[in-house]
Amino acid sequence: MVKTLEWTDAGVRFIDQTKLPTEEVYVTCGTYQEVADAIYTMIVRGAPAIGVAAAMGVALGTRDANANSVSELRTQFDQICETLAATRPTAVNLFWAIRRMKNTFESISSQPMASIRSALIKEAQQMYLEDIAACEAMGRNGAVLLPKTGGVLTHCNAGALATCGYGTALGVIRSAVAQGSKINVYADETRPFLQGSRLTAWELNQDGIPTTVIADNMAGAMMKQGKIHAVIVGADRIAANGDVANKIGTYTVAILAKEHGIPFYVAAPWSTVDLATPNGDHIVIEQRASSEVTHFAGKQVAPTGIRVENPAFDVTPNKYVTAIITERGVAKPSYSESLQELGRKEPVPA
Amino acid sequence: MVKTLEWTDAGVRFIDQTKLPTEEVYVTCGTYQEVADAIYTMIVRGAPAIGVAAAMGVALGTRDANANSVSELRTQFDQICETLAATRPTAVNLFWAIRRMKNTFESISSQPMASIRSALIKEAQQMYLEDIAACEAMGRNGAVLLPKTGGVLTHCNAGALATCGYGTALGVIRSAVAQGSKINVYADETRPFLQGSRLTAWELNQDGIPTTVIADNMAGAMMKQGKIHAVIVGADRIAANGDVANKIGTYTVAILAKEHGIPFYVAAPWSTVDLATPNGDHIVIEQRASSEVTHFAGKQVAPTGIRVENPAFDVTPNKYVTAIITERGVAKPSYSESLQELGRKEPVPA
Repeated sequence: MVKTLEWTDAGVRFIDQTKLPTEEVYVTCGTYQEVADAIYTMIVRGAPAIGVAAAMGVALGTRDANANSVSELRTQFDQICETLAATRPTAVNLFWAIRRMKNTFESISSQPMASIRSALIKEAQQMYLEDIAACEAMGRNGAVLLPKTGGVLTHCNAGALATCGYGTALGVIRSAVAQGSKINVYADETRPFLQGSRLTAWELNQDGIPTTVIADNMAGAMMKQGKIHAVIVGADRIAANGDVANKIGTYTVAILAKEHGIPFYVAAPWSTVDLATPNGDHIVIEQRASSEVTHFAGKQVAPTGIRVENPAFDVTPNKYVTAIITERGVAKPSYSESLQELGRKEPVPA
Repeated sequence: MVKTLEWTDAGVRFIDQTKLPTEEVYVTCGTYQEVADAIYTMIVRGAPAIGVAAAMGVALGTRDANANSVSELRTQFDQICETLAATRPTAVNLFWAIRRMKNTFESISSQPMASIRSALIKEAQQMYLEDIAACEAMGRNGAVLLPKTGGVLTHCNAGALATCGYGTALGVIRSAVAQGSKINVYADETRPFLQGSRLTAWELNQDGIPTTVIADNMAGAMMKQGKIHAVIVGADRIAANGDVANKIGTYTVAILAKEHGIPFYVAAPWSTVDLATPNGDHIVIEQRASSEVTHFAGKQVAPTGIRVENPAFDVTPNKYVTAIITERGVAKPSYSESLQELGRKEPVPA
């Protein structure tokens, strides 16, 4: 399976997701600023992958910081964390990962600089392993929910490319297929960044899982034709009441699923669940450059100067969500209770 | 206002809609085969414009046919009609226009060839004028339905570029704006052909009507944010029971409108109403090339060999349609009765 991101001595190595599916190019970010740029420009994207990438960026920046004391190191560490936290506002995994790195620093701040540095690298690598383990556990927990035979619609890319491997929504699909389910995946192309046609189709194609690409506006017609039997997507942040922030267009897909009586599942690691955010109204939605909508592959497709909206995410209210699949188990309504209950469980070990 | 199509002695002149919004290029089709190609390749598109373009193609082909008798002319006329009818299957205006040209031929088939030829040219030009008059009447009939202030979402292009001028859905918007309504138009970009971002935004921008382009998958989020107060779209065929075939994605928008309690209007000339088709299940939906989805401006955006669905249209069941605006009046549920009633009215004169 593709290595979405990887810690190396030379820096953090990413597959460049802006170049897929036509070019399989890897880039190594040798500084934390380069890691921050890679997150901002979406060389790496997907909430779980962003979290681990940021942790590795923090480890890298701290390793290479020019400091004469732990106190100096901490000042630079804080600034590195700030830079990485400023890249993208919606995916809570980013802040979760940075907080975890801060906790690690605090827990050994009385030790020599070399120990702190190596502990941070170890922590980032541990998060990498935990992410893969969480995806595999999500797959085991969620596979039974998918149809034994039929079409499963997904939006954006919640696959190996959005995580450290295996995927969240696509991990559940992979697990169901491994257990013998005959699933045809319908991949919304997911404008404006085309994560569906470029990334989901690419990685499922490599696995030999039958995949059909559709434009986002075809999902309703496919459901009406009886081709879709379940929807499964990832998440960038899940509020305490089960409202789900995910790639723009997810809300529309959820409404379509409800109208057609099709179950709508969300798969995400526990690090995506943000119990400190009571509901979706409190989730900051990133607005991205209008050029993502007005231009395509360098070609202008809208009149010069036209107004554009380009929210990167939307919020799907909990009433549209059939179940939330995590590595700790499957939450069902009412989410205010079921998510609290999962929160009390032990983390799944790597 | 832009001349979408125009009869000239040299042939049928079109603005090339595949080149907009960055290039304003006109092409003159000197043969009926070139007109058929222009329809097939979407140099001209939009149900009303396709109808008149086909009529002009028939007039052109018949004018230039090498025939020694009316009988020979009729054979060639029939073949010309067949070629033009085979270009696109969904928009009923194409078949309506060709049938009208056939009726014209029949009504004067005892006259000399020159008279038949000039009668066909005159009939096509008459249809051109009637189309503009119908759009203006739709505007008068529908303007009152739109909000005095607020956002109006449209999908695809149902504007001057889809007709001989003024537009159907955009004609209603133009009329409302002319009467003082403060309307912000939200234009779905409308993948895969981008009629919204390329064409609707272009023509409304030229009129100075405030327009915001969004990706198709953002419509739900805009509605949830309270930015959309009405939806208005065109149609390619309206069945006797009020089911509406229109650009792929219309069905999704209609469901979103229902879910948010927003009225969903359809504006189309009477020639789009097909009382011979009982309901939407009987409407043939055109499937277009997968390359429209997998490639963009020559750039590959999906893995080589991936499966694609590319239906050009979908059917919106009548239960989602608040009203159908025609030049003969506004039909409301139950459409089986209201459309029959409009059918008994006199056509609107050019």
